[in-house]
Amino acid sequence: MIKFDNDYSRSAHPKIIEALSEDMHNSYAGYGLDSWCERASEEIRKAIGKPNANIHYFIGGTQTNMTVIDIALRSFEGVISADTGHVNVHETGAIEFTRHKVIALPSVDGKITSAQVREQGVLKLYNPTPGHVVEPKMVYISQPTEFGTLYSKEELEAIRGACDEFGFYLFVDGARLSYALSSPFNDVDLKCLADNCDAFYIGGTKCGALFGEAVVILNDELKPHFFSYQKQHGALLAKGWLLGLQFYTLFNNNLYSEIAKPAVKMALDIRSAMLSKGIKLAVDSPTNQQFFIMTNEQIKALSKEYMLSEIETIDESHKCMRLCTAWYTEQRDVDSLIEAINEL
Amino acid sequence: MIKFDNDYSRSAHPKIIEALSEDMHNSYAGYGLDSWCERASEEIRKAIGKPNANIHYFIGGTQTNMTVIDIALRSFEGVISADTGHVNVHETGAIEFTRHKVIALPSVDGKITSAQVREQGVLKLYNPTPGHVVEPKMVYISQPTEFGTLYSKEELEAIRGACDEFGFYLFVDGARLSYALSSPFNDVDLKCLADNCDAFYIGGTKCGALFGEAVVILNDELKPHFFSYQKQHGALLAKGWLLGLQFYTLFNNNLYSEIAKPAVKMALDIRSAMLSKGIKLAVDSPTNQQFFIMTNEQIKALSKEYMLSEIETIDESHKCMRLCTAWYTEQRDVDSLIEAINEL
Amino acid sequence: MIKFDNDYSRSAHPKIIEALSEDMHNSYAGYGLDSWCERASEEIRKAIGKPNANIHYFIGGTQTNMTVIDIALRSFEGVISADTGHVNVHETGAIEFTRHKVIALPSVDGKITSAQVREQGVLKLYNPTPGHVVEPKMVYISQPTEFGTLYSKEELEAIRGACDEFGFYLFVDGARLSYALSSPFNDVDLKCLADNCDAFYIGGTKCGALFGEAVVILNDELKPHFFSYQKQHGALLAKGWLLGLQFYTLFNNNLYSEIAKPAVKMALDIRSAMLSKGIKLAVDSPTNQQFFIMTNEQIKALSKEYMLSEIETIDESHKCMRLCTAWYTEQRDVDSLIEAINEL
Amino acid sequence: MIKFDNDYSRSAHPKIIEALSEDMHNSYAGYGLDSWCERASEEIRKAIGKPNANIHYFIGGTQTNMTVIDIALRSFEGVISADTGHVNVHETGAIEFTRHKVIALPSVDGKITSAQVREQGVLKLYNPTPGHVVEPKMVYISQPTEFGTLYSKEELEAIRGACDEFGFYLFVDGARLSYALSSPFNDVDLKCLADNCDAFYIGGTKCGALFGEAVVILNDELKPHFFSYQKQHGALLAKGWLLGLQFYTLFNNNLYSEIAKPAVKMALDIRSAMLSKGIKLAVDSPTNQQFFIMTNEQIKALSKEYMLSEIETIDESHKCMRLCTAWYTEQRDVDSLIEAINEL
Repeated sequence: MIKFDNDYSRSAHPKIIEALSEDMHNSYAGYGLDSWCERASEEIRKAIGKPNANIHYFIGGTQTNMTVIDIALRSFEGVISADTGHVNVHETGAIEFTRHKVIALPSVDGKITSAQVREQGVLKLYNPTPGHVVEPKMVYISQPTEFGTLYSKEELEAIRGACDEFGFYLFVDGARLSYALSSPFNDVDLKCLADNCDAFYIGGTKCGALFGEAVVILNDELKPHFFSYQKQHGALLAKGWLLGLQFYTLFNNNLYSEIAKPAVKMALDIRSAMLSKGIKLAVDSPTNQQFFIMTNEQIKALSKEYMLSEIETIDESHKCMRLCTAWYTEQRDVDSLIEAINEL
Repeated sequence: MIKFDNDYSRSAHPKIIEALSEDMHNSYAGYGLDSWCERASEEIRKAIGKPNANIHYFIGGTQTNMTVIDIALRSFEGVISADTGHVNVHETGAIEFTRHKVIALPSVDGKITSAQVREQGVLKLYNPTPGHVVEPKMVYISQPTEFGTLYSKEELEAIRGACDEFGFYLFVDGARLSYALSSPFNDVDLKCLADNCDAFYIGGTKCGALFGEAVVILNDELKPHFFSYQKQHGALLAKGWLLGLQFYTLFNNNLYSEIAKPAVKMALDIRSAMLSKGIKLAVDSPTNQQFFIMTNEQIKALSKEYMLSEIETIDESHKCMRLCTAWYTEQRDVDSLIEAINEL
Repeated sequence: MIKFDNDYSRSAHPKIIEALSEDMHNSYAGYGLDSWCERASEEIRKAIGKPNANIHYFIGGTQTNMTVIDIALRSFEGVISADTGHVNVHETGAIEFTRHKVIALPSVDGKITSAQVREQGVLKLYNPTPGHVVEPKMVYISQPTEFGTLYSKEELEAIRGACDEFGFYLFVDGARLSYALSSPFNDVDLKCLADNCDAFYIGGTKCGALFGEAVVILNDELKPHFFSYQKQHGALLAKGWLLGLQFYTLFNNNLYSEIAKPAVKMALDIRSAMLSKGIKLAVDSPTNQQFFIMTNEQIKALSKEYMLSEIETIDESHKCMRLCTAWYTEQRDVDSLIEAINEL
Repeated sequence: MIKFDNDYSRSAHPKIIEALSEDMHNSYAGYGLDSWCERASEEIRKAIGKPNANIHYFIGGTQTNMTVIDIALRSFEGVISADTGHVNVHETGAIEFTRHKVIALPSVDGKITSAQVREQGVLKLYNPTPGHVVEPKMVYISQPTEFGTLYSKEELEAIRGACDEFGFYLFVDGARLSYALSSPFNDVDLKCLADNCDAFYIGGTKCGALFGEAVVILNDELKPHFFSYQKQHGALLAKGWLLGLQFYTLFNNNLYSEIAKPAVKMALDIRSAMLSKGIKLAVDSPTNQQFFIMTNEQIKALSKEYMLSEIETIDESHKCMRLCTAWYTEQRDVDSLIEAINEL
């Protein structure tokens, strides 16, 4: 079986495994107070063009989201998210676990708009019963989204504008950020992200690392006591240098922005093959995740050799299926998949 | 100014004030372990026809909802509610404060349907990523709803059926329960409620008491350790007998089901007057809360002498306004209001 | 049976019941936004000499403590308390329920010292693993303490000094404050309290009210968003004027500082009778709670007609027992109790 | 500088790095549903002699403790711990973060006794105000303790007995378990642990792994919904097989129980050298952590070439210092350290 069902089924890029191997006889201080973290953070600050950014390393996405959101919000404040957002759907209530409401907005292809953000701001300002309702204070979006789509620079800046109007923080989940950066359809680079966010994270787990997410804190209000909060949330790795080493490897020599290019290209090739076959897109995604409306027969045929992932049942004879490529996907596997698609 | 803006603007029914006065020189054990609570609970058990029900007294609605829901649910479980439900909108995130997600469903006039509950059950059963999502475990509805509407016996039994199918608890918020019981359009009596719920509460604050809500626990699974939970949630009144005395007074001689009848009648009279004037209903409510779509001029005119409550802005020239009657509303005030409506 | 087991076994002072009765036909705005609360807060501000203090009304002590402490502290910060403090012992973990550690210090007769507070400050400053430990940020003391003892002005000011040194808040639980103010051994008046605290609460439940505690917020850092926090914690009374009316009655004409004087005198008389009988004090208390080391025979003899409260077993033949007087204790009951003590 | 300040300053045992390297081109299912986790759990079940144990993999100790304790306890229940226990001191309040009180007992050399546990049970049973206090429900101990000491089989069985008497769970933190298993003074093997605990964890981070802790659940009551809880606590690694692979490597061929033997021997050699020099033990530890009362001069002299870790200041001229060996400590470094000690 060849796996196209997700983008986190292989350990790490060879350069990272190599760096780990070479480093195994060195000793470091714990809890992120080591030279690897320092060097990685320096690389990231350079890449985003923000010398004063604070960088903190986490192990996984849910942990990152729940900690950053909890640090930023008072208990009666909520986070605005697309109803399809990871924090609203796939974190088993981790945000609520830290006492915050996810204010879920209807979304199109995983995205919300600045107009929706502004509407929440207006509702807050003119609420006839202030104090009785959760106050929105942060906007959470994903780049790329859970459906592979991208916010354009224009859209991102518009959301930033709406946030500024109402005093909202903007937090971007970049679990698959390298796939956004590698898409030919993307115009939001790391500097643009850093210019528009209060905080965002650079995903490692799905983008070449064994594990790890690098949180970038840009707004000074979110900086104090980060270490204590992270430790209390169970989110501090004892051997923090393992994260520093990985992110240094990813950001030194631009590995992070290069690693995903072939994956995106292959995903778009699969997309073309599907479209040629008359199979409909469930979402028009320009990155490594592709979503198709397929018949049960088509799914059955492909599933003999390829693992896809089921998103939802559309009707008795159709399902929405996801196919992912990743930094480790091999061209020959995509070639044979496309052949199989052509034969459907 | 004559207040029609809410139904909790006067202290308590004279019989309750009288009972308090008469009782002021007696001494009792604290924390609900007194004879008044015992007698009140006996009356309630009789009224609902459930000799084994546990009764617990709380001070207010938000406190009641957050404690009962937190007792019933594991941290990763959520409570299904109408998107307009009190727990989703007007408790400043108290449910999330206890770590639970409110799974908000689109609603019509404050109500959800058994089909919607069943759909949530099916989603839970067939979820492709179980463990990654919040599991629904309880259905929360209000009787009457926040918009004054009522679940019929048939609707309630259908929701119960859907709950049984998927192992959900059913919890009914009866903050204004006496207004439901007093409506000529109601066919859900206390026994019917008790037959169909795992837990519900009988509202006192808005129904004749100074303050207080009586929680009825019917499902044995929800009974253990209630006292400890209630204390820990800051929801245990030291002088518990004050609650017992009030609920005894309300349930002895049927005061609770009688007290709201005039209020409902007067609300329906106001409704008729509005309709005669061509003013549209925002919601078709058979209880003491009435919702109208009024022009700014109409609102301005009435607001000279009467307090209404603004629910939301419809468009530049219209707003949705709420008018409430209550157990203490006087006929002469309603008469003069109706006159004022006629003159609009 | 005559109850000396606690000080919250009768409803309210006749003046409060009277005020409630007289007010029963008036209508008010909800949630504390009424004229009674305004007037009560004005009286309290006058009594404490702090025109800029914010006053908030709660229903009970546990609820008050858990809300104020949670508002003041970040999640990784803890509250220093005597190991015998109410927040550490008798709130079923309500403080931990809001995610904060109670840093319990050994105490003598319910009291901690400025030296102990300073020691915690030094530990915080010189901790070899900062970020890995809970940081103390607030000192919680009770006046009178859970054992009836009092902090002197000198002791209070010394604790304030230690707090200033290390940036700690000082919060005083005044659940039985009127008994402190009424003790001939007390030199901490309301103004002195207000001069030395960041926040404190004036107990009503045990001091003449039906229920209720008035929180005084003096430090501006603790003022923002109080309403939202209070609502979210389930601690906001819908009919807030019931609290305002009671505290206005208690503070208008000095009822609050007068009400407890007879009770304290009677408590000291009981104390003298016990001492004359050779019964040892468990604690040397100058207020309405008295603690004695009694033999099982003595306890049995008194318990025929009088209710005492058991604190703990000392050895096979002795127990520590508490006797309380209260604002409602009658002289004839104390006379007969003293007679019974004399006959032991 | 040669590091003796902690036992987690090197990445992983060469066999683990090697296994990771060899495995880098294989693909796996996520979230622990892979063959490595299956094989690792099989090895662990065999090693502990419990074919029905559930095994769950975590990333670090704080995360493990907070999740397991939160799963086991209702919100009003607390966990008994030595006052020096990791959960009470070094987790920045992570246990309180999940709403539970740590009931801290005075300890000797990091250990509590069955008599202390029994005393807590008796206090619970005979509490004069049940429902008002946190109920102890779990006993947490560490093997070895934070001070390197060991519970003997007899002590462990006695604690188990006390737990059984009062319905307490016993949970053992084995962050450094391999150092216990490798000590010549230890008589608690894995089977003995499994026979006496409801749950325990086998530390990987400090015992040869890059990171990771394997939780063993023996009591069926603690098994349901573990996946959901773990995900919600942010404690589920996406690439779970990385943990499975490491624990398989540690348990296949007994690496786990062998790896720490040289470290313990070297620690005892350092201990002898210190004692010969007249330096006092702060704790009499039979494992890899050693604690000494040293003069400031001695500390200064050693610190020129060796990193020690400061535990606390004893007086103006003495400090308690910790020296750790670890699975990666080299004999030549210990030889030179001992030489330096001899020259003090």
